[in-house]
Amino acid sequence: MATRKDDCIFCKIANGDIPSNSIYEDDDFKVFLDLSPANKGHALIVPKVHYDNAYEMDDEFAAKVFPLATKVARAVKKALNADGVNILQNNEEVAGQTVFHFHMHVIPRFKDDTVNVSWVQNESNPEEQAKLAEILKAEMK
Amino acid sequence: MATRKDDCIFCKIANGDIPSNSIYEDDDFKVFLDLSPANKGHALIVPKVHYDNAYEMDDEFAAKVFPLATKVARAVKKALNADGVNILQNNEEVAGQTVFHFHMHVIPRFKDDTVNVSWVQNESNPEEQAKLAEILKAEMK
Repeated sequence: MATRKDDCIFCKIANGDIPSNSIYEDDDFKVFLDLSPANKGHALIVPKVHYDNAYEMDDEFAAKVFPLATKVARAVKKALNADGVNILQNNEEVAGQTVFHFHMHVIPRFKDDTVNVSWVQNESNPEEQAKLAEILKAEMK
Repeated sequence: MATRKDDCIFCKIANGDIPSNSIYEDDDFKVFLDLSPANKGHALIVPKVHYDNAYEMDDEFAAKVFPLATKVARAVKKALNADGVNILQNNEEVAGQTVFHFHMHVIPRFKDDTVNVSWVQNESNPEEQAKLAEILKAEMK
């Protein structure tokens, strides 16, 4: 069972030791507005217990994450008349994680905003992909 | 209850009418490798029933999404020795959605790859944020 971690700012915010602009709270999560938002309404879904990242999260807890994300996505879309929404969860520094307590970003999107979510779409070699799929399939068992 | 949608390529792939490099399948989802991957092992989690996006998804189905995403994240990290993983779900064109059947990207990350997930971190006005939080809190009820 995960618990709180000393000196973790998101443990403190999620449990109310540091104030935040909360938009939702239940026994497991606090959802609050990002202090340095990509766009107005940029929200963070943060568990009250500490998980460094998604790799660590057990299935029972993980099952609670995405229903909440869809609820936040609908709320920010409606309240801000957003053109779209990104739901994003980064694991480890190279992926853009800056606070090492699991969090999921819900970012309302607007035309010509500053958010960039992109990558080079590489051509894939069919044989290599088939081999890789077999390796990953074994890893998924 | 969502069902399949005619002429939807992800309905066809998820239900096996079009072949894919599948790495996982159950009653609700197929997970397969993206044909134009950001990085090797870039996988898509796709429901067999049709939802245009996350806004439409009911809680019962949404509860199944993130446990699967954590499983895929662990698998790609381990199999590819990835430095990190992005879990990303885009809603509407402005957010980068290109196939209008719900899908969640699981992207293994490596130093100096081509994936860009970034935004300007805007300063927030405390009064505006507090007001916005109240509006969103009401919308979350």
